[in-house]
Amino acid sequence: MQTRYRANDLGISIGQLAPGRLDAITDVPGVRVGHTTIIEGSDVRTGVTAVVFDGCEGHGLPNRLFAGAHVFSGAGELGGFIQIMEWGFIESPVLLTNTLSVGEVRDAAQRYLAEKYPTLGITADPVIPIVGECDDGYLNDMKGRHVREEHVRQAIAGARGGPVEEGNVGGGTGMYSFDFKSGIGTASRRLPEDRGGYVVGCLVMANMGERRRLTIAGVPVGQEIDDLLTTDVVEGSAVVVLATDAPLLPHQLCQLARRAAVGLGRVGSYGSHGSGEFVVAVSTATVIPRVSARRTFPIEALVPSRSRLNPLYEAAIESCEEAVVNSLLKAQTMQGREGHVAHALPLDRLLEVMRRYGRLAENARGG
Amino acid sequence: MQTRYRANDLGISIGQLAPGRLDAITDVPGVRVGHTTIIEGSDVRTGVTAVVFDGCEGHGLPNRLFAGAHVFSGAGELGGFIQIMEWGFIESPVLLTNTLSVGEVRDAAQRYLAEKYPTLGITADPVIPIVGECDDGYLNDMKGRHVREEHVRQAIAGARGGPVEEGNVGGGTGMYSFDFKSGIGTASRRLPEDRGGYVVGCLVMANMGERRRLTIAGVPVGQEIDDLLTTDVVEGSAVVVLATDAPLLPHQLCQLARRAAVGLGRVGSYGSHGSGEFVVAVSTATVIPRVSARRTFPIEALVPSRSRLNPLYEAAIESCEEAVVNSLLKAQTMQGREGHVAHALPLDRLLEVMRRYGRLAENARGG
Amino acid sequence: MQTRYRANDLGISIGQLAPGRLDAITDVPGVRVGHTTIIEGSDVRTGVTAVVFDGCEGHGLPNRLFAGAHVFSGAGELGGFIQIMEWGFIESPVLLTNTLSVGEVRDAAQRYLAEKYPTLGITADPVIPIVGECDDGYLNDMKGRHVREEHVRQAIAGARGGPVEEGNVGGGTGMYSFDFKSGIGTASRRLPEDRGGYVVGCLVMANMGERRRLTIAGVPVGQEIDDLLTTDVVEGSAVVVLATDAPLLPHQLCQLARRAAVGLGRVGSYGSHGSGEFVVAVSTATVIPRVSARRTFPIEALVPSRSRLNPLYEAAIESCEEAVVNSLLKAQTMQGREGHVAHALPLDRLLEVMRRYGRLAENARGG
Amino acid sequence: MQTRYRANDLGISIGQLAPGRLDAITDVPGVRVGHTTIIEGSDVRTGVTAVVFDGCEGHGLPNRLFAGAHVFSGAGELGGFIQIMEWGFIESPVLLTNTLSVGEVRDAAQRYLAEKYPTLGITADPVIPIVGECDDGYLNDMKGRHVREEHVRQAIAGARGGPVEEGNVGGGTGMYSFDFKSGIGTASRRLPEDRGGYVVGCLVMANMGERRRLTIAGVPVGQEIDDLLTTDVVEGSAVVVLATDAPLLPHQLCQLARRAAVGLGRVGSYGSHGSGEFVVAVSTATVIPRVSARRTFPIEALVPSRSRLNPLYEAAIESCEEAVVNSLLKAQTMQGREGHVAHALPLDRLLEVMRRYGRLAENARGG
Repeated sequence: MQTRYRANDLGISIGQLAPGRLDAITDVPGVRVGHTTIIEGSDVRTGVTAVVFDGCEGHGLPNRLFAGAHVFSGAGELGGFIQIMEWGFIESPVLLTNTLSVGEVRDAAQRYLAEKYPTLGITADPVIPIVGECDDGYLNDMKGRHVREEHVRQAIAGARGGPVEEGNVGGGTGMYSFDFKSGIGTASRRLPEDRGGYVVGCLVMANMGERRRLTIAGVPVGQEIDDLLTTDVVEGSAVVVLATDAPLLPHQLCQLARRAAVGLGRVGSYGSHGSGEFVVAVSTATVIPRVSARRTFPIEALVPSRSRLNPLYEAAIESCEEAVVNSLLKAQTMQGREGHVAHALPLDRLLEVMRRYGRLAENARGG
Repeated sequence: MQTRYRANDLGISIGQLAPGRLDAITDVPGVRVGHTTIIEGSDVRTGVTAVVFDGCEGHGLPNRLFAGAHVFSGAGELGGFIQIMEWGFIESPVLLTNTLSVGEVRDAAQRYLAEKYPTLGITADPVIPIVGECDDGYLNDMKGRHVREEHVRQAIAGARGGPVEEGNVGGGTGMYSFDFKSGIGTASRRLPEDRGGYVVGCLVMANMGERRRLTIAGVPVGQEIDDLLTTDVVEGSAVVVLATDAPLLPHQLCQLARRAAVGLGRVGSYGSHGSGEFVVAVSTATVIPRVSARRTFPIEALVPSRSRLNPLYEAAIESCEEAVVNSLLKAQTMQGREGHVAHALPLDRLLEVMRRYGRLAENARGG
Repeated sequence: MQTRYRANDLGISIGQLAPGRLDAITDVPGVRVGHTTIIEGSDVRTGVTAVVFDGCEGHGLPNRLFAGAHVFSGAGELGGFIQIMEWGFIESPVLLTNTLSVGEVRDAAQRYLAEKYPTLGITADPVIPIVGECDDGYLNDMKGRHVREEHVRQAIAGARGGPVEEGNVGGGTGMYSFDFKSGIGTASRRLPEDRGGYVVGCLVMANMGERRRLTIAGVPVGQEIDDLLTTDVVEGSAVVVLATDAPLLPHQLCQLARRAAVGLGRVGSYGSHGSGEFVVAVSTATVIPRVSARRTFPIEALVPSRSRLNPLYEAAIESCEEAVVNSLLKAQTMQGREGHVAHALPLDRLLEVMRRYGRLAENARGG
Repeated sequence: MQTRYRANDLGISIGQLAPGRLDAITDVPGVRVGHTTIIEGSDVRTGVTAVVFDGCEGHGLPNRLFAGAHVFSGAGELGGFIQIMEWGFIESPVLLTNTLSVGEVRDAAQRYLAEKYPTLGITADPVIPIVGECDDGYLNDMKGRHVREEHVRQAIAGARGGPVEEGNVGGGTGMYSFDFKSGIGTASRRLPEDRGGYVVGCLVMANMGERRRLTIAGVPVGQEIDDLLTTDVVEGSAVVVLATDAPLLPHQLCQLARRAAVGLGRVGSYGSHGSGEFVVAVSTATVIPRVSARRTFPIEALVPSRSRLNPLYEAAIESCEEAVVNSLLKAQTMQGREGHVAHALPLDRLLEVMRRYGRLAENARGG
């Protein structure tokens, strides 16, 4: 296995805002990530990733967190999307897996939650889990449906804060983007204290894009490195999870999600007709009780203004852009189903290109 | 002038929830209504109606109230719609007028607000007023653009609480619906105290529908009274303003607006291809500061649940349905441009029909 | 088993347009319906209904038909919704089942289609089936997941034209609405020849509504018959399938779908916060090839105008309203899980009420 | 006046697809552009731009062209937006002007059309013109409302094919972006013959963005050239007009519009909370008759597939990105209201930066 590095490690700077401490979605307090990576034999290359929100933990019943969503390109499914748009909240982890395992993952999550909260689906309404999917069928025996209930439980139960594993892990195990191996990537941005000090974190399962469009920090990397192609050109999808501790309301989280799609575009996505590219945005700031003796609950909301919202929009775009880049940088070359190979983006060549385009930190102004 | 009565006065009961004290949008605390009715000579039959929200009154700058909207049929304009969907609030009165006076009314409202808040458009962002329109060209010399700045100012400045004039007043002066004279109508519903005691009020400028579809309290009135037609069959539009003191967030106000369209449907609208039927919903519960030294502001929001939201949905539907009916019941026969006549719905014949269908209060079970 | 009758059989007339020959969605040429009804022991009360479109049958690969959709209330899932909104077409049957069987039904449909079109998911993009769900857990052991692959295949393969079974069949087997047993219902409207002679057909899986709101042909039936309640008050959902041979484009099918929701509202739905009420609308007029040697394909589209579109809107509302009523009229009393009972709407009492309100055909004007 | 050059003239290459012959929206057959530029005294700096579609020219009544739209950021107005979303077509020019002249421009366009088609608004439905606006109040005495009817007529009547004037012209006269003078810009992309040979053209009135975000062909120009700022930081808006001869349907034009927003993002927009950034997309391929003796009209539509639609998406993004860049490159330094100055982007410094980042054509690989 090669040693792989993240954008920041390599001196590749995406955007202008400062990252959070870990440059990961887990910089947002109360957000945890768990991966189950399933690699077996020559053709099982899949898994499940869970983004778990402490705010949804309740006594007796789960609580809710405000959420919004956006469809950049709609050729796919995002389980729970309609409910997010109606209710403006989520009450479960966001789960990422392959296209044909959506049903199993949803069912497993429902069972997991029903054990944890025994009245769910009995006297209380069931939870509709949020499940995103991409097609990993190039490397993975997707039709074998290798994601099983225990994998989902393990991803949720094992979710933790701290550094997030990236690349060929969890739901991203068998994914590729821009004809390079990709998978899971993450990044974050922390606003200055005078802008509220909020954190916007992003985790993406990336599986989209054509090589010739790959753009890293504005550099046309995909035109410069045009070999190491896969033999398959069917784009999958991308599922973007944004989290923030900024106290945003559902319609503002939809704004954030809509803008994050620009991050996909900056890396080179054009929202292919065959690709489902979705964004889910969650605010951890306000816990909405599922059950309450009171009729109302208190919220501290952001006073809406340019100076308060724009930095969050910028953070959403930048963290999404960098998360996709990290998903490429951290992924290892993988061989899978039918001998198919997806190559890792070669870091030495990347650095050479970035240098040539004046985009490495040490010589950004030196060319 | 005939004496005209509202639905409740006639024993015609729409829906199941109790009305507020006045059965008017002004039952919602902090909501005021002003009309300027412009009737001159043989062919000027128009005006402007202002729904004014105390919550938008600010010191130095206007404040904001959460809002949502819905397009049931989109053949028309609702000035400010895009901004409501983006920002989730309004910061001005909602103004109703004829199609060709939208520009004048918006400009006048902007000037009015700029006088009141001198920094607007200078150091502070301008306000985009919410302006709804229907086509009153059958009775009114609409192309003469008879609504002038002073009319708008008068409607806003004269807005008050208490009973609301209905029928041939304000923006509704020259409107007709279901081939009967209509105009402005209002109604409200008050939830029981154990459901929060909230009020949902509705004011509609009604200008839509075909006679044969007119349905009042479930009775096919338009099939029973099929004479007294106009000579014109071009439907206009309907602009519905919902207000509530329930502490709803923007996405919930969109839910309310979407459901209110059922009220239009229950009276007989099918959302004609040539009709713009819009709903704007505003919550008076939370004042959002435009400027604040603090980063956040407090909200008490409704804990989302069936028992808390469903009664509000029902109230929205019922108050919208009754407001349209009241706009018909209170309107007087009017002659206007080119001798065109829109007839008032004949109350005696209406009562006879309602009785025959078992729908008058005294004999609802006696037929 | 009681003998049950449809609205038309009973002289209950919904709306103003003439029904098609069978007053069923199958009046639309090329639309077939298949049910698999699963009733076993004391607590299995479920099934699957398939609405199959001949236009999707292709050589080697399925073809596509234009489609649109609308969410009236979003507390549920409609598999394939995002894709309909993005692509504007469907390429599979629309399948209706219980909430927890969505995954199985989708997978089974994908396997069925993959057998029929072996390159699907290999060299050709997979099909995302359209799957609607309601919660039948009151009568059915939903958690037992009794819908299996063979049931789905049987529903699709058994789909045929002609009269459509209604009530406790297929996906509607265990459903109830307005606290009466309901299930599957259908209806249609045929426009006069001078309006194009088009047919709009509707099939609904109805599982929504509160008794006191039940309204049939404008009559407050639910207030008149307020006994025979279930012991459960959790609303499920409603999935409405509209089909038409009118040559509508996707945005026009969305218009149709949006208006059909008025039909739900006219029967008494207010789009409960806990209910997912969805409409899918499909035009059979134009077959869109999945693969073509040509770059374009020909469409004959409706010249957009009031006179051409409004009758279709009316037909959508009326056929939806009547389909819900038929789902109630044709359903039999059913006992299921844990001895729960959902009562059939008693026809004798219904007729007495309708008569009292002047709403039976023989005395509509006689009271 | 400095000599100003377009991106292509300077060897700055945006994207990967080939431009059309003129690299302008007028490369799309049947699309004409007219500008009225109003510069008077020291503080009138405004105008109106008309994008005119031959396909809308009819005999007796205007015809229609399919259209779609997208709101990237909704703090503004786009007259006619709701109707585009409902009807899926336009039937008038698209007009661009300053925020406070929207009413005048719309009225003038309606009068112009009513003269041309005398039955409009009499026996035929009036046309709702599409009017986009940005705030040019920094350089222009916007409150003086200097756009008058004759200016609108002149822009429409003077619209012609061929090269399009850019920069400080028409509606863009007083606009600025990224704190440099901008205005009107245009660009186009022509697909290879084997992808249909279609043209996608874009014209933008650009008035958005913060300097530090300005990115040209991936190069962080705004960070490199951080002087020559305006004294005002209020972003306005951007109105993007896409035209194509590809035979797209309304929902596909909405897809195109949604993707074009990525072009705004690639230049550095994050969709500011105070900015209205809108895209309107029109296909010239199919003329929809307003009146027809036939019930239907023929369309040749694109067979939907990746290979047919993706190049159009790419073309939309690239032409939008380049049009914004051209609006900057072609604009001249302007002084206006209260002595305010917006500086032209200095081309020599730009070229130096582009060269340093390896982004001039002659040395793209040489750095």
